[in-house]
Amino acid sequence: MLSDIEIAQSVTPEHISKIAERAGVPQEYLEMYGNYKAKVDYNLLNDHPHEPGKLILVTAINPTPAGEGKTTTTVGLADGLRKIGKNVVAALREPSLGPVFGIKGGAAGGGYAQVIPMEDINLHFTGDFHAIGAANNLLAAMIDNHIQQGNALGFDVRKITWKRCVDMNDRQLRNIVCGLGGKAHGVPREDGFDITVASEIMAIFCLATSISDLKERLARIVVGYTRDDQPITAGQLHAQGAMCALLKDALKPNLVQTLEGTPAFVHGGPFANIAHGCNSIMATRMAMALGDYCVTEAGFGADLGAEKFLDIKCRLAGLKPDAVVVVATVRALKNHGGVPKAKVTEENLEALEAGLPNLLQHVDNITNVYKLPCVVAINRFPHDTDAELELVERKCRELGVDAVRSEVAARGGEGGMALAEEVVRLCEQGDAEGRSASTFEFCYPDDASLAEKIEAIATRVYHADGVDFTPNAKKQLAQLEDLGFGGMPVCMAKTQYSFSDDPKLLGAPRGFRITVRNVKVSAGAGFVVALTGDIMTMPGLGKDPAAVHIDVDETGKITGLF
Amino acid sequence: MLSDIEIAQSVTPEHISKIAERAGVPQEYLEMYGNYKAKVDYNLLNDHPHEPGKLILVTAINPTPAGEGKTTTTVGLADGLRKIGKNVVAALREPSLGPVFGIKGGAAGGGYAQVIPMEDINLHFTGDFHAIGAANNLLAAMIDNHIQQGNALGFDVRKITWKRCVDMNDRQLRNIVCGLGGKAHGVPREDGFDITVASEIMAIFCLATSISDLKERLARIVVGYTRDDQPITAGQLHAQGAMCALLKDALKPNLVQTLEGTPAFVHGGPFANIAHGCNSIMATRMAMALGDYCVTEAGFGADLGAEKFLDIKCRLAGLKPDAVVVVATVRALKNHGGVPKAKVTEENLEALEAGLPNLLQHVDNITNVYKLPCVVAINRFPHDTDAELELVERKCRELGVDAVRSEVAARGGEGGMALAEEVVRLCEQGDAEGRSASTFEFCYPDDASLAEKIEAIATRVYHADGVDFTPNAKKQLAQLEDLGFGGMPVCMAKTQYSFSDDPKLLGAPRGFRITVRNVKVSAGAGFVVALTGDIMTMPGLGKDPAAVHIDVDETGKITGLF
Repeated sequence: MLSDIEIAQSVTPEHISKIAERAGVPQEYLEMYGNYKAKVDYNLLNDHPHEPGKLILVTAINPTPAGEGKTTTTVGLADGLRKIGKNVVAALREPSLGPVFGIKGGAAGGGYAQVIPMEDINLHFTGDFHAIGAANNLLAAMIDNHIQQGNALGFDVRKITWKRCVDMNDRQLRNIVCGLGGKAHGVPREDGFDITVASEIMAIFCLATSISDLKERLARIVVGYTRDDQPITAGQLHAQGAMCALLKDALKPNLVQTLEGTPAFVHGGPFANIAHGCNSIMATRMAMALGDYCVTEAGFGADLGAEKFLDIKCRLAGLKPDAVVVVATVRALKNHGGVPKAKVTEENLEALEAGLPNLLQHVDNITNVYKLPCVVAINRFPHDTDAELELVERKCRELGVDAVRSEVAARGGEGGMALAEEVVRLCEQGDAEGRSASTFEFCYPDDASLAEKIEAIATRVYHADGVDFTPNAKKQLAQLEDLGFGGMPVCMAKTQYSFSDDPKLLGAPRGFRITVRNVKVSAGAGFVVALTGDIMTMPGLGKDPAAVHIDVDETGKITGLF
Repeated sequence: MLSDIEIAQSVTPEHISKIAERAGVPQEYLEMYGNYKAKVDYNLLNDHPHEPGKLILVTAINPTPAGEGKTTTTVGLADGLRKIGKNVVAALREPSLGPVFGIKGGAAGGGYAQVIPMEDINLHFTGDFHAIGAANNLLAAMIDNHIQQGNALGFDVRKITWKRCVDMNDRQLRNIVCGLGGKAHGVPREDGFDITVASEIMAIFCLATSISDLKERLARIVVGYTRDDQPITAGQLHAQGAMCALLKDALKPNLVQTLEGTPAFVHGGPFANIAHGCNSIMATRMAMALGDYCVTEAGFGADLGAEKFLDIKCRLAGLKPDAVVVVATVRALKNHGGVPKAKVTEENLEALEAGLPNLLQHVDNITNVYKLPCVVAINRFPHDTDAELELVERKCRELGVDAVRSEVAARGGEGGMALAEEVVRLCEQGDAEGRSASTFEFCYPDDASLAEKIEAIATRVYHADGVDFTPNAKKQLAQLEDLGFGGMPVCMAKTQYSFSDDPKLLGAPRGFRITVRNVKVSAGAGFVVALTGDIMTMPGLGKDPAAVHIDVDETGKITGLF
C-alpha cells in the first residue's frame, strides 16, 4: 500500500496554466507560484461576472480517532463530478504548517483523492499563513510599542486580548511573561502565543470580500480594553493599512489541482472552534463563478463545521448551498457505538446501530433545521461488511436520505461517481422534494439576543436541554451587547468530539446541558465567540514528533511527510 | 522630487522571463512568483557550468545618519556596466520585513537605482525569510518539547542558546519567561526572541552550497549545553531534515530586475554584526556564472562588511574579488569630521578634511591588507561643491586610488557609467598595478588561534592598539577551542558607526583598544562570533512607526512604503 505522499509524487501534475484554462481563468488573472500553484486575481470576479454554480457542502459526523475522510471525500466528489461530465471546481481549506511536524499528517486529502503538490500545500504553499502571522504580529508589536511610548489610548495591560502567533506546535509559548529586562525593553505583562490559524486575522481574511472590506474588518479588531472596559481597536492604532498591505496578495485564492487534474482552490483555514472553520469567501465565490458545481468543506463535525458554514459564512456572504454531503465511516460509527479504535475493523452490527444516531442526528439537522437537501457518503474501508453498509443505508433511507458508498481514497474520481450522481440529482431536483437552496433557513435570526442565539444552536443543533451561562459569561454577554455587538452571529467553541460539551459523550446524547464559560468578540471577523470550556489554541509536539522523520534529498524531494 | 516608491511604481517592469533570458537562464530552471519575480533552480550551476565572471564588491565608509547609498550605488553600478555594454548580474541582500514598519525605509536601493518590484522585495518577497523563521522556530519547539518529554539529552535549561525569532521590530519579546502555566505547558525558563535576520539559520542559509551542505550545517547548530557544558546540537534532536524541508525552496536564488532591466539576484540577508552580512553564496555563484560581471555588496562599513565578505564568505566559498568599490558621500564625511547631520549640506572643507581619514583608512585596508584593486564612488548630492568633490578626489589619488563621481540615484545607469568604466579598468588591468584577484590575501590565516584572529582584525583592519578579553571571554575562547571550533574564522560583532568599539569615535581613531566581552560559536554557519558589547538582535518601533503611514488601495497599490 502506497503512502499518501508516494501516491502524490507518483502523478505528473499538469502545468497550472492548463488547470487555469480548464477552470476558465484568463491567463492575465493568473500569478504563477512555480509551475503547479497560482494565485488568481480577485478582480476576475468583477471584470467577468458569471452566473454562480451550485454550492455543495461536505461535512461529517463527529470526528473519532478512527477517521472519517472528509477532505478526501470532498476531493473525490469533485473528481467524481468531473468524471460524469460536470464542470466542477473545489474550494478547500489550507492546512496549517505547525501540525505537520506534530502527530497529524498533511491535510490535502488522502489516497487517490488528494490535491497536489501536497508537500507545498502542507508546507509554505503560497505564503498566505506567513502573511497572516506577520500581520498578526505587527499588530501585537504596535500595541506594546504604543504602551511603551506613553499609552495614550490607556490600555490596561492586564486586559490586552490580542496575542502573538507562530505557525508551529509550541506549547512552551502558551503562557509567557514578556517585556522583561528593564524600561528600554517594554512593559512587563502576562501574554501568550496562539498557533497562526487561531488568529482572528485568519477568520477575517476568510470572510473578507475585497481589499477595502478586509481593511475595515482589520480596523474593527478589538485588541484590548481600558481600565474602565472600553474597547481599543486596531483602527485606533492606525494599524489596518500596514496589516492590509501585508495581506493583499494572500487575499488572492490559490489554484491547484487534484490528482486527476480537477481545478481546486485551497485558500484560508481558520480554527473550527474559536472561528468558523471554512475556506475563504473569496475562494468559494471564485469556485462558484468558474464552476457549474463548487464542492467545499467545513471543519470538524456538522454540529460545529456545518453550523458555522451555514449560520456564519453563508449569512455573512449571502450564500445558499444546494446540497449537503455528510461523510461517515462504518468504523467511526462503531466507535461512536462504544467500540475502541483497535477493534473497529471487526464486524459489529450492534455497535454500529448504537453509533448510527450520531450520523442520523446530523442528517436530521441538515434536512429539518436548515431545510437543505442531504446525502450521506459512506467512505468505504476494505473491512466494512455488506451487512454493515446495508444497515447504514437502511437507517438513512428511513430519514428520506440516500447513503452512497464512496471509494475515492482507493479509486479516485471513479470511486466517487455514484456520490456525484446523487449530488447532481439533489441539486437539480431539490425543489421537487421540498428542500433546496431556496428553502434554506438559518438556525437563528440576526435579531435574536446573543444568549438566544447560543440557546438556539444548543437546543436545535446539539439537542441539549438548555444552556447554563456562568456569572462571568452573563456579565460578558451584557457588556458585548452594550458595546453594540449583539447583532452578530455566534461562533461556538466546543469540543468537536461530541454534540455536547463533554468529549466523552459520543453518539447522539440526550439529557445534557451546555455550559458557556466565556464570551468574547471577534469584532473584525464579525462574530461573538462563546466558549464552553478550555479550547487549546496552541498545540504541542508529541513524544515522537513527525518532524524527526521528515527529510529532503539533494533533488529537493521530501520524504516522511504523511 | 518623487519618492522611491513613486519612482519604482512609475516604471513598467519587464516580464521576469525576459529578464531571465537576458541573464541566460533557461526557462526550465525558472520558477515564477507572479510576473516579476522568479526563483532559479540551483541545479543550473551543475547542469550548465560557466566560466565565472568578475566579482566586484561594493562596500562603504562607516555609516552615519547622513547616509551613504551603498545599495543604490551597487544597483546603479550594475546598470552603468550594462550601459557600457557589459553582461552584468547584480547580487544583493534581501531586506528584512520588520524594519520596514519601523523607521527605516525599504532596502532595495533608491531614486533611479532600485531593484523592483520594491514593495514585494520589502514585504514578503518569495517567502525566504518566513521559511527561515519557520525553521528557526521548529528547532526551538523541538528543543522545549524534548525537555518536556523527559530531557534525555540533558539540557541545562539555563544554557539554551537557541532563541525563537519573528520578523518584526518587537522589543516586548527581547526578554521573556516562557513555559508558564503548569506542567502541561512546558518548563519555565528565561528566553527571548531575535528578529529573523539575526537567526543563525539566516547565516547558514547564506553560506550553504547545496541541499546536503545545508542539512549538514543545520545538524551542526549548537542549541544549548548540558550541566557539564557539553554542546547539544540540532542533529542530536534529529531536526535537520524537517528544517531543511522547510528551506529547500528558499535556497533557490530570487531573480528580479533593476529599474533599467538589469538582472539582479536578491537573496539572503544576515545581520552584519553577529553574522557575516552579505547575500547568499548561491546568489553570488549564480550571478558570477551568468554574468561577465557580478556586482555585489556587503553590510555596514568596510571594517565589518568587507572584512567579513573577504575573511568569511570568500574564504568559505573560495571566492576572489576582482575589484572593490568603497562608497562615500561628502555629507557623511563631513559628519565624520564633526558636523551634525543638520549642517552637512553646507560647504565645509575643514570638516571634510577631518572626516576623510575614515574613507582613506578603508581604502588603505582594501589595497594594503587585502591587496585588492579599489575605487572610491562618491555618491553625489546636489549640494556637494566642486571644491569638496575635488578634495576627496585629490586625497584618494594620493593613495593611488581614483575617486569617481556617481549620480545613479538621480540619473540611473547613465550616472554610473564613469564608475563602471573605472571598475572595468581595475578588473582588466589589475595585475598591471600589482593588485588583482590573484594577489588577494586574507587578514589572518586559518590556523591562527581564535584570539590571534581577533587581534589581527582589530590591529590590521580597525587600527586598534590591541584587544582586551574579559575573563569571561577568555574562558569561552578556551572552551570553544577545546570543543574543536578553533579553526573557524571569526565574526566580529561591533558597532557599525566606528572603526573602534565606541560608536562615538568617528573618522579614523587611533590609540584605542577593543574589548571582547563574549565569544560564542555559530557552528552551523561555521564561524565564531566575538561580541565587543551589547548587540541589539531585536529592534523596536519608534514613536511614529512607519507602519502607521503604510496603506494599500482597492487595486493593491501600496503607499507610504519608503
